[in-house]
Amino acid sequence: MNINNKQYFNKIKSELNKLNLSNNPKELYEPIKYILKMKSKKIRPILSILSYKLKKNNWQEIVQYVIAIELFHNFTLIHDDIIDNATLRRGKQTIHNKWNDNIGILSGDLLMVIANKIFSDLPLRIMRKVLNRFNEIAIKVCEGQQYDMNYENEKLITEKQYINMIRLKTATLIGFSLELGGILSKMKDLDIKNLYQFGEFMGIGFQLQDDYLDVFGNRKFGKKIGGDILLNKKTYLLIKLLESTNEKEKIIINNWINNSNNPIQKIEAITNLMKDKNIDSITETVINNYFNKAFDYLKKIDIKNSQKNELIEFSKKLINRKN
Amino acid sequence: MNINNKQYFNKIKSELNKLNLSNNPKELYEPIKYILKMKSKKIRPILSILSYKLKKNNWQEIVQYVIAIELFHNFTLIHDDIIDNATLRRGKQTIHNKWNDNIGILSGDLLMVIANKIFSDLPLRIMRKVLNRFNEIAIKVCEGQQYDMNYENEKLITEKQYINMIRLKTATLIGFSLELGGILSKMKDLDIKNLYQFGEFMGIGFQLQDDYLDVFGNRKFGKKIGGDILLNKKTYLLIKLLESTNEKEKIIINNWINNSNNPIQKIEAITNLMKDKNIDSITETVINNYFNKAFDYLKKIDIKNSQKNELIEFSKKLINRKN
Repeated sequence: MNINNKQYFNKIKSELNKLNLSNNPKELYEPIKYILKMKSKKIRPILSILSYKLKKNNWQEIVQYVIAIELFHNFTLIHDDIIDNATLRRGKQTIHNKWNDNIGILSGDLLMVIANKIFSDLPLRIMRKVLNRFNEIAIKVCEGQQYDMNYENEKLITEKQYINMIRLKTATLIGFSLELGGILSKMKDLDIKNLYQFGEFMGIGFQLQDDYLDVFGNRKFGKKIGGDILLNKKTYLLIKLLESTNEKEKIIINNWINNSNNPIQKIEAITNLMKDKNIDSITETVINNYFNKAFDYLKKIDIKNSQKNELIEFSKKLINRKN
Repeated sequence: MNINNKQYFNKIKSELNKLNLSNNPKELYEPIKYILKMKSKKIRPILSILSYKLKKNNWQEIVQYVIAIELFHNFTLIHDDIIDNATLRRGKQTIHNKWNDNIGILSGDLLMVIANKIFSDLPLRIMRKVLNRFNEIAIKVCEGQQYDMNYENEKLITEKQYINMIRLKTATLIGFSLELGGILSKMKDLDIKNLYQFGEFMGIGFQLQDDYLDVFGNRKFGKKIGGDILLNKKTYLLIKLLESTNEKEKIIINNWINNSNNPIQKIEAITNLMKDKNIDSITETVINNYFNKAFDYLKKIDIKNSQKNELIEFSKKLINRKN
């Protein structure tokens, strides 16, 4: 992260601190303070700031609002972790694991309320636009999470279903992060739409990249490679693998799916099958296609190219990560 | 319910039907449709309508907004039922019981989003006022629910703690229901505050009445008497009973609390102890005090008395229920 991003990051952190959350009941507020202190790149509010800066310079004045996206994002993480039974988040105990499910439900609910409260302090005309879109996006996020839950119990899902699921669950909020900057800087409606599309396609690319790096990424900071394979997650890679294998190979894959005794061999076997079928390069191509589509929308935005550099640079940094 | 309330009730139902909820993913929307179809008196939106009618007649035009309170209320019910492990709600299976916890979490989340979405369609200046208060109230409701959870694990809680808990968890939303009608009809700020206080005190009275009727109410429609006693719920009655008993009596009560083999005898014994200590009449007095305080605030409102009749009549009907 270069010095500029650090500047945004620090300002976001200081606005989060300024929230001045109550201390009582502590069982409700401690989990919220705990998750907000976790290591996080704050990508979403940084994207809002950079998209705002396409048109205006006084970005410091909107950080108090864009942190609502980070709060909403954390609300989804808390509830998703309960739903997925996840024990760790960013290397720390998840809230429902450290406390319990009920506290997870309630502190998540409260985070969503606080996000709404922040947006309802926006200047009037902007507030309506932001809230209409925010609520639309929140509905999509819930729908995406439900599809994700549904697909866990299904043997086979299609590429189309998967892309739509990650679009709803993940990409719409990235889209909205960019859109928010555009609404706050009073961009033209068409440019605001283009910003959203830029973000949505980026978001799909990021999620596919997550899937890819879980298998083909560099080992770093003790991050496990193949975690998704061990958990039999229906990632893009597994869907493409099952699409391209014959009946015999499918049986082999399913045997591995039902085998939890040989984790190292399981990761190796599935990874090798993926390599045999070129799933790595197929996925790379698809990811690049989404990123290219995203940048097509950024190009359409009626702003001098030189103004776009910072957003482009930051996005490319996200795109080029290797773990 | 007289003919007028039926008119409000039907209009509320028809506006709920007009929400035109999506069908996909059905796992997410079916539970929402299921809970919205449950038998419910729709007290909160009716209170909003009647409070609006203190000043304006065209109540039909605001029903599309006040249903947001009913949606928010149902969101809290869904999540509370998960937290309390409740199997039945209004005589039907609770959502997490009929489906599962995860679906309960997610469909509750979505209901809260939809409530917000409805309010964000309000006329601009009113929207800010409504959303600011709505979010403040939602925070209090979460805090109240957390205190309720905390108190379940505590041996002794005070009357003051209990009243504050039900105020936050239940009464603030009744207060807001009345306040909302006042905001929508553009009443003076002071009168809006008085409406809120009227509702908050009514709400505390309603909850204490619930506690009272669970033990001393009329049997009707197979509704069980003494359910709270069986579940060892820390109701107002039990708190007052423990306050007024000596060490020997406390041991007897605690023995009953730890006894789940003789339900009929348990209810009888605790009820008789309550009667011995006049807990029934003590509670009746306290309830009436809250209702009287409530009506003091209604009197303060700067509106002709004749205009207040319908709201008074409806409130008295709620106050005088016997089961």
